[in-house]
Amino acid sequence: MIEIDGDRLLADLRTLSEFGRVETGVHRLSLTDEDVAARKWLAARMAEAGLEARIDGLGNVYGTTPGVRRTVLIGSHTDTVPKGGWLDGAMGVMYGLEVARAFLESRGAGGEDNRDAGVDVISFVDEEGHFHGTTGSLTFCGDFDPETVLTFTNTDGVSYAEALARTGFAGGPVTRLDPARHIAFMEAHIEQGPILEAADKRIGIVTGIAGMRRTAAVFSGQADHAGTIPMAMRRDAAGAMIAFLHDLAGRFKAMAAANTVWNFGYYRIEPGAPNQVAARAEVTVEFRDLDKALLDRMADEVEAAAADAAGATGGKVSVETDRVLAIHPADMAPEIGRHIEAASLALDVEPLWMPSGAAHDAMHLARVMPSAMLFVPSLGGRSHDPAENTSDADIVLGAQVLAGTVERVLADPSFAS
Amino acid sequence: MIEIDGDRLLADLRTLSEFGRVETGVHRLSLTDEDVAARKWLAARMAEAGLEARIDGLGNVYGTTPGVRRTVLIGSHTDTVPKGGWLDGAMGVMYGLEVARAFLESRGAGGEDNRDAGVDVISFVDEEGHFHGTTGSLTFCGDFDPETVLTFTNTDGVSYAEALARTGFAGGPVTRLDPARHIAFMEAHIEQGPILEAADKRIGIVTGIAGMRRTAAVFSGQADHAGTIPMAMRRDAAGAMIAFLHDLAGRFKAMAAANTVWNFGYYRIEPGAPNQVAARAEVTVEFRDLDKALLDRMADEVEAAAADAAGATGGKVSVETDRVLAIHPADMAPEIGRHIEAASLALDVEPLWMPSGAAHDAMHLARVMPSAMLFVPSLGGRSHDPAENTSDADIVLGAQVLAGTVERVLADPSFAS
Repeated sequence: MIEIDGDRLLADLRTLSEFGRVETGVHRLSLTDEDVAARKWLAARMAEAGLEARIDGLGNVYGTTPGVRRTVLIGSHTDTVPKGGWLDGAMGVMYGLEVARAFLESRGAGGEDNRDAGVDVISFVDEEGHFHGTTGSLTFCGDFDPETVLTFTNTDGVSYAEALARTGFAGGPVTRLDPARHIAFMEAHIEQGPILEAADKRIGIVTGIAGMRRTAAVFSGQADHAGTIPMAMRRDAAGAMIAFLHDLAGRFKAMAAANTVWNFGYYRIEPGAPNQVAARAEVTVEFRDLDKALLDRMADEVEAAAADAAGATGGKVSVETDRVLAIHPADMAPEIGRHIEAASLALDVEPLWMPSGAAHDAMHLARVMPSAMLFVPSLGGRSHDPAENTSDADIVLGAQVLAGTVERVLADPSFAS
Repeated sequence: MIEIDGDRLLADLRTLSEFGRVETGVHRLSLTDEDVAARKWLAARMAEAGLEARIDGLGNVYGTTPGVRRTVLIGSHTDTVPKGGWLDGAMGVMYGLEVARAFLESRGAGGEDNRDAGVDVISFVDEEGHFHGTTGSLTFCGDFDPETVLTFTNTDGVSYAEALARTGFAGGPVTRLDPARHIAFMEAHIEQGPILEAADKRIGIVTGIAGMRRTAAVFSGQADHAGTIPMAMRRDAAGAMIAFLHDLAGRFKAMAAANTVWNFGYYRIEPGAPNQVAARAEVTVEFRDLDKALLDRMADEVEAAAADAAGATGGKVSVETDRVLAIHPADMAPEIGRHIEAASLALDVEPLWMPSGAAHDAMHLARVMPSAMLFVPSLGGRSHDPAENTSDADIVLGAQVLAGTVERVLADPSFAS
């Protein structure tokens, strides 16, 4: 029986949140001084717990249980968005440390433990994309060569190689999937949304991580004096964009599944003055769902609606669309989900099966091994914000459910080979 | 008979365009070095023509015909918008100089001329609003005290008083309306739109200058992760704004008169990322018409549509509207318009009666004396742009029509007292 220590977990989480703390939030971008200090502290804490700990050649922090052949890998990330919260990513990593530590303690207590399986823990570098989103997990899964990662640049124009050179991490080996050792991946995370709170549930079992698409639409007309050009002669790019977005919202509503979401959040209108007809209007349309075929149809619909809106101007406004991003949906392993359910019910807590609308490292891991995610509620649904929080009781409960799940996976013969 | 000299007019216009020239355009903001040099050149050119010329204590350049009691005042402005064209404003001032010069020559040729009426010319300072739009004409009409003008600041934070101190103009008397002397005001201008060109007309007679209103609408919701919040729980400020603008375009279309125009040109969406639900969406709605009552109804309709769009969110998004600008429409004097028509027809040119969608100094002058505007075509309808141009033949024709109009006004007994 792996028994986690809730007070120790909370104390570790609070210590971690001091690296880059800004009032109630945390500002800890990958490979900055705060982030590097947090990684060194984490590696030391892993070593204290009895794990073999290292910070690899890209900044991933990796702790392995000695003396075992096969492991459940538990991980997430310890970097944050600019002025983010204290739990996003950090909680999943500290769950890993606590479960691994409790696992080692449970083995030590027995003395004669001869299990050949255990727990490894990882903090993937740069999940939040200060250089490139989910850098660590993509490299772990073999999508990027380390040499490619070194060429990424952050928003200040600093390359990954330059930033890494200042950390002392450069040059070491890079952590990759070990198929013989890693039998499953588990990522626990705050929900970052309001669904668990609204349903009065304390544990979420993620069915899958929504895929995400982005299409940029740029309408082109002509800048003109807004007083002197008759309405019928205008080439108003903003007018065509408004018509497009109104129409597209209706089309999306008609084709959406229960969990489909979309957002029209980025705009650039030029010249952008009240008395100038817009020559150029750009908007990015983002949409997410678990169903890749639906995402494909929505991407087609964006293009059809854009062409219709431009066409309705009789050639006065033209449009170009560009599919700028496509992240495919990732199914979580239902056999692990059922172990989460059992571990939760064993604590008299009824979990909720639900999709993840946000992207996570687990979406890449799911392609290379059975992977699962466990959610705990976000107070007020807030995240990526200093207001982000979860009750202490729910934080501790989530870790205990994760420990119970790991125990069940390690005992499940279908994960034995 | 006042006979203008087309070659001399074009040469003067081209000389003026050298002050602040940038390729085919002109960048001559009020009270900058280029603008001050242009004003000094203009005053010298007025004096050479036989006018009594002065640059007043705000920078207005004013030339008066000596020995007359009553005058038609001809004017416009010689400042430009940033990177503007060579004719906007400048043409109307140089028409004034040319007509006054030709008037003095016609009198000199006769020798025994005993008319007591003549022509004054003015270049109103800062029509384009480097400090405050139509500063010179508003002060001329008594709307501003000179002391108030000195407190205006430009976009670089420099006050009018500071800028003026560097010009050497400070401290002098300021030109105001002289009701006993000024019997009418005339402003010639490029159309700045495509109407004359599309109608194949060379002279436009302005019926009135459209009034303009601006209402700012700010929708407020909540920034949220665009993947994790179900559509039904979002407080999407941008979504409400799109619905508002689509609805408002339809309402405006239904209530518009023939010449009504509107523009949705300024937007600010925050936080402004593809993956963040917009917490705040601001748009400025601008609309123009000759009918003040229609403008009032449109302003009401903006507020009704904004309230409806916010209401449709069921309280998730709120809206505040602010009537940030109201410029009332100004009728031009039809009795002068008929003289423009006669002067044009005398040259075998059929003019077009049309409204002005753009604002001009004449809209203020129309409140204090009979005022009129004459348009010549803009090639391709372009203005406020280095591409702004008018054919030489149309520039010369416009000046000759203006001269014929002045002659008719001076001979019209209804303007005699």
